[in-house]
Amino acid sequence: MREQYREELEDINACLVEMANAVGSAMSTATTALLDADVALADLVIAGDDQIDAARESIEQRCFTLLARQQPVATDLRTITTAMRIVSDLERMGDLAEHIAKLARMRFPDHAVPLEVRPILLEAGHIAETLVAKTATVIGTLDVKAAQRLEAEDDLMDQLHRDLFRELLADDWPHGMETAIDITLLGRYYERFADHAVSVARRVVYLVTGEHQLNATV
Amino acid sequence: MREQYREELEDINACLVEMANAVGSAMSTATTALLDADVALADLVIAGDDQIDAARESIEQRCFTLLARQQPVATDLRTITTAMRIVSDLERMGDLAEHIAKLARMRFPDHAVPLEVRPILLEAGHIAETLVAKTATVIGTLDVKAAQRLEAEDDLMDQLHRDLFRELLADDWPHGMETAIDITLLGRYYERFADHAVSVARRVVYLVTGEHQLNATV
Repeated sequence: MREQYREELEDINACLVEMANAVGSAMSTATTALLDADVALADLVIAGDDQIDAARESIEQRCFTLLARQQPVATDLRTITTAMRIVSDLERMGDLAEHIAKLARMRFPDHAVPLEVRPILLEAGHIAETLVAKTATVIGTLDVKAAQRLEAEDDLMDQLHRDLFRELLADDWPHGMETAIDITLLGRYYERFADHAVSVARRVVYLVTGEHQLNATV
Repeated sequence: MREQYREELEDINACLVEMANAVGSAMSTATTALLDADVALADLVIAGDDQIDAARESIEQRCFTLLARQQPVATDLRTITTAMRIVSDLERMGDLAEHIAKLARMRFPDHAVPLEVRPILLEAGHIAETLVAKTATVIGTLDVKAAQRLEAEDDLMDQLHRDLFRELLADDWPHGMETAIDITLLGRYYERFADHAVSVARRVVYLVTGEHQLNATV
């Protein structure tokens, strides 16, 4: 019985890693859809979000069942409540990838992103992918040092966000207001995606060390 | 012992209601700070967010202790896990109020919001306050019908969000790009605040009925 319980905990962890990878793939596809104005890819991300939501449901339900049946205490209890929070961050990251895909779809066949802003969002996409890949590793390995290093990556995203605003605020922004609104929202989506990745990493640090790295206003 | 446990559950619920009221008050003050360019009010909201974060910490810790000591099952278990999720929505709503206050502070002594956009954001502030007040009631009373009615209020917020974009996209927007970016982000903050209120209401519906009103992409 105890053995089965361990296995279930480990399998939930494996599902979290898998879900993080699915979110990473959604983000990567969404960024390509956005930068290439590829509506088929955008649709793929939009349709795929249901699976990410279903993964959340399934993992939550399994955590819930474990809480009820095994009545865990101490570290096991913390593991399960942490998993329930991580799954909610990951689902939100999936939503943000979907928002990006929807914006690409809304502007199709036009490109939502003007040429001079492309490199910044391409880079934002890369950082987002790196962050979520590292997040998956952190979940799987419970590596506190790696979790803490994620914060530095997030600083890169904040820098890109500032670069984006600098483009928008240039005296000669020639692309009109609609595009400016799109770019502002896109910047926010990438930034929030990164924030949630950092939040997952912090939850892992808390799980392992019992200490919060509190920064609730990310 | 059992009696004490009931009381603790009820007291946690009372703390959630209190936290929702604190978030409502932060949002109301943030909106006034924004529309009146009142930096003292903005600072009040920014400083007050620590208390909202502390309330989250405290409620989470109490839920955690209950899970470990009482090993609840069925409805009680669901009550506690729901409380842990509600508290996270409420904390995020507090963050969004703080974002609005910070934007007011950043533009001070200027007004962040031009005259013709004021009525829309004033109304958004009112809807946000109404939503969170009703959310507090829903938490306190577990009234499923009231929870379901919240969705209609959220539709009003979505309408305002569209009005905001219409202003921005008018041919003769005279306020420049920085203000346009501010307004875009403000619109997003109010919209997300409302989304989280709806999410709390849905969690209460789930708690009472066991049925999800799933709409994960709000």
